Amino acid sequence: MTFASSRSVPETVFRGGRFSESSRIVAEECAIALSYGGSTEAVMMATPADLEDFAIGFSLSEGIIASIDDVRGIEIVEASGGIDLQIALNDRLDQALRVRRRAKAGPVGCGLCGVESIEEALKPAADVADVDLVCSASDIAAALSELSAAQALNTETRSVHAAGFFVPGKGMIAVREDVGRHNALDKLIGHLARTGVDGARGAVIMTSRLSVELVQKTAKLGSGFLVGISAPTALAIGMAEKAGMTLVALARGEDFEIFTGHGRIRMEDKADAA
Amino acid sequence: MTFASSRSVPETVFRGGRFSESSRIVAEECAIALSYGGSTEAVMMATPADLEDFAIGFSLSEGIIASIDDVRGIEIVEASGGIDLQIALNDRLDQALRVRRRAKAGPVGCGLCGVESIEEALKPAADVADVDLVCSASDIAAALSELSAAQALNTETRSVHAAGFFVPGKGMIAVREDVGRHNALDKLIGHLARTGVDGARGAVIMTSRLSVELVQKTAKLGSGFLVGISAPTALAIGMAEKAGMTLVALARGEDFEIFTGHGRIRMEDKADAA
Repeated sequence: MTFASSRSVPETVFRGGRFSESSRIVAEECAIALSYGGSTEAVMMATPADLEDFAIGFSLSEGIIASIDDVRGIEIVEASGGIDLQIALNDRLDQALRVRRRAKAGPVGCGLCGVESIEEALKPAADVADVDLVCSASDIAAALSELSAAQALNTETRSVHAAGFFVPGKGMIAVREDVGRHNALDKLIGHLARTGVDGARGAVIMTSRLSVELVQKTAKLGSGFLVGISAPTALAIGMAEKAGMTLVALARGEDFEIFTGHGRIRMEDKADAA
Repeated sequence: MTFASSRSVPETVFRGGRFSESSRIVAEECAIALSYGGSTEAVMMATPADLEDFAIGFSLSEGIIASIDDVRGIEIVEASGGIDLQIALNDRLDQALRVRRRAKAGPVGCGLCGVESIEEALKPAADVADVDLVCSASDIAAALSELSAAQALNTETRSVHAAGFFVPGKGMIAVREDVGRHNALDKLIGHLARTGVDGARGAVIMTSRLSVELVQKTAKLGSGFLVGISAPTALAIGMAEKAGMTLVALARGEDFEIFTGHGRIRMEDKADAA
């Protein structure tokens, strides 16, 4: 089952002091439910493409599954106004999820107080200090250029983010786009899991700012290298530092800025290398 | 209690083919819990500023309160690694929230299936068709320029969004910034409620793309006019249309594009007006 990711809409343009009738291609945004055992875990507003990747990547990122082998099947069900991703887990996990839900469901909702909820949200990223990967300045520039070339939906709509996986020596091996940058990364993670690519082999490249959740997802993928075209937050830097992750941001054209994990970057000036 | 919204961090810059040591001011990102009656409703990654505005605006947007009078008090509690906003509701609402939570908490978590969850996420925006407000092309250009001038944190960090409230004839009466655009709008909504400003009197101006949740929040505020500097999604356009909201996007400098609710825009070409 496939859904369109964009559509043309009529509009009135005011440009150079004049109104005129026109049309524009805009991105679809769709309510996508992720359901396990008939009960929904989350509804994300997302681009309705690469839905199997999304189902697997979300399940991995959220720790609902440990590997793709935990999933027995994915059914994509069109629901009124949205899409329900019905994910069937293997029996052991299905049972574990039921127990987890029962434990969570006390008489006053989630039952967690502020301190517990904050700790839950700020779970330290997985340790990736031992990940062995080195990129040069040219690798980073190549990754940016390849990512940009692969953003088909964004070229049309100018309103979606992309997440790419770059392997030095091989180039950008996968790119996923979505109206939400977290969804784009989950889709990428799902695709890598489905095709058996080890996250430690490459760098995640994002078209967005680098927030703490992107660091958490990248570490969970097993990658030690995260690049963003825009700025990082202070918390993202702190968490990347603790996880032993290389964080490169404000990466545009040939230039970039390194915030943590300098050891994975071949730091020779271009003049020296030449 | 106040917290810094940015900090300076060391970095290594690669620019023009050379590496050098430098520093950069980055935005703080903080886990902020919203708790009612000792139990947390949500944890948002947000900028730790304007926290009372955030508490009120989030509570209004989520429908937890109907007006600011439903809140007895807000306590800002620093928790390990984050901030807990402990919101005390009046007795009637406190009781209602308890009942709602009890109803939600079945033996298998939220208990909603995919279809129900999607309907919940896609609740139609409040009807704002009757909102009486007209803006000219010059109003929109003025709003953009005033918003840009008011983005203090973004000027420092280049990584936060802003939401502003523009009243024709009065100008931009409030601006709130946040690492998350939804949070920025919730803070703005909270501020307007705390200062007794009727949402119908003005337009919401966002520095971001226009997604469906921003339409829902703007309508809940009672405003019939939403402007964004970037593109709208198809779903945002559809929901704005149904709600009778004016949706203006890709607004930059003097130019903009109208997707719905043309009736609220004084459509005279600049040459005619002069």
